[in-house]
Parts: sequence; C-alpha cells; structure tokens
Amino acid sequence: MTAYNRLTATFARIATLNEAASVLSWDAAAMMPDGGADARGEQMAILAGLSHELLTAPQLAEDFAQAESPNDAWHATNFALMRDAHKRATSLPQDLVEASSRANSKCETIWRTARPASDFAAVREALVEVVNLTRQSAVILGEALGTSPYDALLSGYQRGITAAELAPVFANYEKFLATALPQAEAKQRANPAPRLPPGPYPQEVQEKICRRLSEAAGLDYHHARLDRSAHPFCGGTPTDVRITNRYDENDFCAALMGVLHETGHGIYEQNLPPNFRRQPVGEAAGMAAHESQSLIIEMQTVRSDAYLTYLAPLLAAAFDKPITAAALKSRLRHVERSFIRVEADEMTYPAHVILRFRLEQALISGDLAVADLPGAWNEGFSKLLGITPPDDRRGCLQDIHWHAGLIGYFPTYTLGAMGAAQLMAAARRAITTLDASFAQGDLSPLKAWLNQNIHSHGASLGFNELLRRATGEALNPTAFEAHLTARYL
Amino acid sequence: MTAYNRLTATFARIATLNEAASVLSWDAAAMMPDGGADARGEQMAILAGLSHELLTAPQLAEDFAQAESPNDAWHATNFALMRDAHKRATSLPQDLVEASSRANSKCETIWRTARPASDFAAVREALVEVVNLTRQSAVILGEALGTSPYDALLSGYQRGITAAELAPVFANYEKFLATALPQAEAKQRANPAPRLPPGPYPQEVQEKICRRLSEAAGLDYHHARLDRSAHPFCGGTPTDVRITNRYDENDFCAALMGVLHETGHGIYEQNLPPNFRRQPVGEAAGMAAHESQSLIIEMQTVRSDAYLTYLAPLLAAAFDKPITAAALKSRLRHVERSFIRVEADEMTYPAHVILRFRLEQALISGDLAVADLPGAWNEGFSKLLGITPPDDRRGCLQDIHWHAGLIGYFPTYTLGAMGAAQLMAAARRAITTLDASFAQGDLSPLKAWLNQNIHSHGASLGFNELLRRATGEALNPTAFEAHLTARYL
Repeated sequence: MTAYNRLTATFARIATLNEAASVLSWDAAAMMPDGGADARGEQMAILAGLSHELLTAPQLAEDFAQAESPNDAWHATNFALMRDAHKRATSLPQDLVEASSRANSKCETIWRTARPASDFAAVREALVEVVNLTRQSAVILGEALGTSPYDALLSGYQRGITAAELAPVFANYEKFLATALPQAEAKQRANPAPRLPPGPYPQEVQEKICRRLSEAAGLDYHHARLDRSAHPFCGGTPTDVRITNRYDENDFCAALMGVLHETGHGIYEQNLPPNFRRQPVGEAAGMAAHESQSLIIEMQTVRSDAYLTYLAPLLAAAFDKPITAAALKSRLRHVERSFIRVEADEMTYPAHVILRFRLEQALISGDLAVADLPGAWNEGFSKLLGITPPDDRRGCLQDIHWHAGLIGYFPTYTLGAMGAAQLMAAARRAITTLDASFAQGDLSPLKAWLNQNIHSHGASLGFNELLRRATGEALNPTAFEAHLTARYL
Repeated sequence: MTAYNRLTATFARIATLNEAASVLSWDAAAMMPDGGADARGEQMAILAGLSHELLTAPQLAEDFAQAESPNDAWHATNFALMRDAHKRATSLPQDLVEASSRANSKCETIWRTARPASDFAAVREALVEVVNLTRQSAVILGEALGTSPYDALLSGYQRGITAAELAPVFANYEKFLATALPQAEAKQRANPAPRLPPGPYPQEVQEKICRRLSEAAGLDYHHARLDRSAHPFCGGTPTDVRITNRYDENDFCAALMGVLHETGHGIYEQNLPPNFRRQPVGEAAGMAAHESQSLIIEMQTVRSDAYLTYLAPLLAAAFDKPITAAALKSRLRHVERSFIRVEADEMTYPAHVILRFRLEQALISGDLAVADLPGAWNEGFSKLLGITPPDDRRGCLQDIHWHAGLIGYFPTYTLGAMGAAQLMAAARRAITTLDASFAQGDLSPLKAWLNQNIHSHGASLGFNELLRRATGEALNPTAFEAHLTARYL
C-alpha cells in the first residue's frame, strides 16, 4: 500500500466517524429527550476527540512525509486538501486550541443573556478574549497555509476565495444598493400589496405539503428524512440526509421556504461524486457553495414568477383558502430596511453581511478594538442602510457567530446568494425552457444542470473556479444585481 | 493517577463510545431511511473497531499489570469485571475473531432464505463452521476465565450462573410441566373463553395508550422516547432510553404487552447506580437479570388479576368497545402447545428453552453433530411437549440465534421468567398491598422495591447472588411453578 493509499484509508475512517457524529447531532436537535443532553455532550466530545487523534497521529505525519502527490488531478486535489486539513489540525498548539474552545464556550454562554438584555458591556471582556485567541490562531494558520490571517479563517469555511477578491465585489454591491433600494421601496409603495388570507394553517397540512414539494424538488427520500426541530437545518450524510423544519400555524411561508432551502442543501449532498465518498475531494466545495445550492432553490427558483404561479393553486387547494400567486409574491418578495440579519430580504441581506465582513477583518487585524465595536457597528450600518440600530440587541449583539468564535463565516451567506444568481443566469442560458418547467413544478432540468456543473465536482474546485467553469466567469455581482433589478425594479 | 483510575477512565471512554453506537443502532431500526443502511454499517464497524482498539491497547495491559484490586467492594468488583472484559477481548486470536464474524454473518444470511424454505441442508455447512469456531472460542475463553467452554459462552450473556446450576432447575421444571400442562389444558377446555371484540383498533389510539401506560409504569420520559420499529426493543443509554413498538390494527394485545415489556427493560436502565455510570459495575447485571425486569412488569404485573381489572375499563373507553377483564384474561393467559418459541405462552416457553439449552451444550461439547440437529430437535421437542414439528422451519430453523453465532443466550429467557416470579413473590411478601396498588394502576411500590433490590445493585452481584439478596435464596423454580399453578390451575 502506498503512503497516499494509507492516507485515503485514514481520511475515510475520520469521515465515517464524523458521519456518526453528524447523525447524533441531528438526533440531539430532532429526537433526543431533554434528559439525554449531558450524555450526548460527552458522546460528541469523545467522537470529536477520536477524530482529532486520527488526524494528528504520528503515523499520519509519516505518511505525509513519504507520500507523493498523485498524477491524477482529482487525487492530487484530494492530497492537497488532506494536507491542508492536517496542517490545520497540527499547526495550532494544543493549549491554544483548548484556550480558544473554553473562551468561545464562555463567551457564547454570556452572550445568551447579554443579547436579550442588550448589555454589550457584560460580554465585552469575554469577546476580547475570543478575538485575541482567534487572531493568534489566524496568524499561525495563515503562516502554515501561506495566506493572510483573515484568509486563513475564511478558507476554513470556503476555499478558493480571498478577502481581496471579495472587497471590490461587496463595494460594487454597496453602490448598487444605494440606488436600487430606494427605487424598490418607491415601487412597493406605489403598488397595492394583496395579502395572504389569515390562518390557521394546520401544521400537519403544512408538513405534508413541505414533504411533497421537497421530494418534487429532487430530494431522494430513499436516502433522506424530514423531521421537526427548533431551527431548520440539513444534517446527516450523503446517503442519509436529515433535514428538519418548524411550523407556525399562523404563517406557512416560513416553513415552506425553510424546507425548500434545506432541500437545496440536501440535493447537493446526495449528488456529490460517489467515487470519492469519504475523501476530502468528494465533499461539498464549502459553505458558500452549499449556500448557493440552498438559495438557487429557495430564492431563485421557488420565489420565481413561474414557480409561484404553479404553487398558488396547490396551496389554495391544500389549505382550502384563496391563496393567489399575487399574494405570495407580495409576501415572499418584499423589500424592507431592518436591523436583524436573519429577518432581512434578499436585497438588503448583503448589506448586513458587508458590514460584518469589514468589521471582522478590522477585529482580526487589530484595527478595531472590541470596545469600539458597538459604535463602529452603528456607524457602518447607518452608512449602508440609512437607519441606526436603537440598541446593541438589534446591533452588534444580534448574532451568535463572533461570540462563539466563528469569524470569517459571514461572507459565505452573500457569496452563496450571488453565486446562486450567477448560476441561475447560466442555467437559464443553457436551458431556455427552465421557467416553463418551473411553471409545471418541475425542477428536474435545473437539478440535472446543477448535478453536472456543481454537485459532481465535489470539492475538486474552489469557489471561484467552480463558478468559472459553470458560468464562464469568477464571482461577479452583476447577475445578482440583474436578478434583483428584474424582480424588484 | 493510579493505574486503577486510568483503567476507569479508559472504560468510561469505551462505554461512551458504545453509547453512541447504541443510539445509532436505535436510529437504524426506528428512523433511518433504507438508503442509509450501507453507510450505517460502516459507521457501526468503525465505532466497534475503535472500542475494541481501546480495550486491547498495550497501555491498558500495562495498567492491569500495575493496578491492585481496590479495597472498596464496588470498586473491587468493577476491577474484576474490567479484567474479565479485557481477558475476553485479548484472549481470542484476531484471526479467530474475524473468521467467526465472517462465518456468523454468512450463516445468518443463508439462514434468512433457508428458514422460510425449511431447508436445513442449505444452511448445514455454514452452521458447522459457526459451531466449530464458536467451540474454539469457548475453549480459549473458558481457559482464560477458568470455566468450562459452555459456561464461558453463558457468562458472556449472564454472569453468576453455571450450566451445572441450571440443569437441575430445568429438570425440575420439566417434571412440573408434565403434570401441569395437561391440567391447565383441561381447565381451559372446561371453562368458556370470553373473546375480545373484533377490531379495528386504530394505531394512533394504541400508541397513545401504550405511551400513557408505559409512563404510568414508571418510565421517565424526560429521559426516554417511544417510537416504532419492525420488532420492539429497548436501546439507547441510561439517561436516554429508546423503546420501540409496533401496532396491529386487528389486535392491540401484542402492542400493549410489547411496550410494557420494553418499559421494564427501560426502568432497569434508568435506575442503575449513577455513581458508577459508564463503569462495568454500574451496568445491568446481565441478560437474565434484564429479562427478569421486563417480565416482572409484562408477565407478573400486567397480566395479574388486579392490573387487568384496572386495565379493562381504560381500554374499553379508549377504543370505545366492550373490553372486559375476563376477555383480557382469556386472551393474555392462554396455554397452548405450539412449535414456535416466540409465540409460546409463559407455561410452555421454558420447554422451548430447555430443549435449546441441552442441544447447544451438546453442540459445543461435540456430543451432537450439526448434521444430527434436526432429528435431535424433533425428538427432544416431542419428549418435552408431546408434539413433533412437521418441518425444520417450525423446528431447528426457527431462531436466528445459533445461525448468528449466539450460543449460550437462550437460557437467559427462562432465567428471567423464573427470576421475575421469584422476585414478585418476595415483593408480595414485603409489600402486602401490592395487588391493591396494581388494581389502581399504581406500579410505584413495586418499582421502589425493584429500585432498591435489583436496579441499584448494578452489576455488583451475579444472577444468583442478586436473587439471594432480594428473595433469600438462589434461583429456584418453585416460585415460578407456584405462580403458574395459581394462574392456570
């Protein structure tokens, strides 16, 4: 057995162990009785510890020392991805990893009470510690991987894109938004907004429709389940996808968009290259690539004129209420300046992300002190969206991410949204009948195109390269702006 | 840290890993989509492999070499149980373990088609291999543990009982049965049997009642779930018990007995000594002890006159049908000679086990050749129950156990039934109001007694010693026979 073959065997073991953890994590959110939480925490810790032990075992370092990069392009990328994962796992000193883990956990705990109290002072000291330790890790990782500290964090969530490439894309969007947002608002004010009929919308009926639409969108339920949890997510493994959803009897829209968003994630997982199952190159290409697949279903397809025309009579019949395509459109395609990212519409959402992208770079570089975060947040927010958060609860305290040590993650949301628009534009060029199929509720032509152009590539390409092959160019916000212009202006 | 403390840390790791496997095993039966089976098989294999690696690591052998048995009785037993587990894991050569695993798996696969075809010849060769390899393992384990080969297998399922102790108990029961069974049959023939009303009994209503009765019997649902699977079982972990059940719309009895049987197992797990959680001495005392806890609920309590009197009006109201205590009794306490063990009543069930106990000892000693099994089975069966299986499907092919390498397991079923009767007799002596509480559907006095006399002992006592402390004597079939006499004669 060659050293490279030994490496693939070890990485397959690690991936299999991580699959077990993924199912247990789904179980904790969707199935586990409350009293099982403590034991589950220890089970997850043991699995994570064993996974880390496998990745940092001396034998693995020897295999890396002996192995040569394979000639085959996929295997060569696989080898490079293994090496990166190994570098990430071994370059950080154990005491820094443990200090970071403790600091993140402590800060997250404090944040859980500081946010509702809008009390930034309460969490400030803990956040200073999180940022300092994350900066130390970022510097070490950057040296190991040959990138800037911030890019080392970013590439932990999405490979193949740098802050230097992102900055002009985001600046471009900022300019677009300054003109487009007031225009969209004016158009909305000028047009009457038909409303959806009031509920109740029985949870069982919602769940049945969600399941039916998810399956019709292309998720293979021979290899998937749909269950309930407090927050929707997609977990499990490629041959055993677990998506979850929640249902509000007063409003079916959140459940419907939730399930179709997670369906997009699930379809990606199910259609990864089976020949490289449990190898780094056989995984999804990153968080931004993943988000592009959920949003191309949820935002690009389901909220399209064609699909909503198909959806309205189906919902009207299921709920026995006068649900029209016009009312669905006004509800699902409404633009509004607001303080909370997770409630934002698709046009203003990137502004929330751009603010965080700039601030987190400044925190990592040291240009921004944690103590100055609330002021910088409010100033930046006001500049981007023209409104100022009345308190930190609706400002810099709203997201868990930084308080849990997740720095470099936010950009993937907007990369996903922009990527989805860019991919949809290319798909529409390639398949001229795409909207006609959406009007029949048929997503199979789109799915086949995504299978070929995204899913089957696994992680063999970075984010920009994936877009270049599929659309002819690297990340470019033009398609996203054109999509918003067509939908809102 | 002492060597003993290092050992407890390692065993806690192993137990935590096994907990993860237990939840994944429940998931496979109750939740997993069919398409997830292959991946789950590999996840389970990795977890089992890691667990075995931890148990056979050189460091552990060093710790055993250095450690001294602790003075505290519980810790001393814990140390002894650890040592036994370590001996079991390390004494068998790896190639024998792997050959056995392959042979069991192959034979089980062949058996799955040979059984419905009643084709013993098809499975014979594979079963010869299973028996030969199990015999080799039994000889090695017996030498390592200082027992006979068969007792080494038996003690893998239930510690603290030997074949030499079992043989007279079973011979005694055989004599009892020869007189009691014809008498019970005569009595049944002489008395009219009121019948339960025909269905349908909606599954949802059945499930709701099952859940309610399970909780009322004492299973804490803050630490448990009830779900559906093809065959009822109790899995999960002590703080996260997962019981499953199945529902037949034509007959609620199987579901009701199933859920209360598994509830007994679950209550045992939930009430094990928390101070020794994840240590060998903190686990249940064995399969026979476990079965005694399921049967003391299902057979001794739920099928008692008092409980059925409580149950009948409750079921009548839930299903809106004229269900009487008399009809429940004639349905749930019916004696009949039959060929299939899993369908047998409580009086004839031990005969099925006694036959298997004798045959499997002869297979392991070599006194019985696999080729002669069908004849020996039919002869023995006829001698015990006076009827002869018309084919091997209803004879020696009916059970999966031997074909999957489970030899030494069968006795635990009847040990559990006899233990349950012996424990119930002792509980009735200790709590004179026990049946009055059952008539109110109140199992809490029984549960408190079991908590104190069985559950809280964990695995600190072997089966006979557990009975001796709780009832004043070692295993004795008299209480079981007295129970059957009172109920059926």
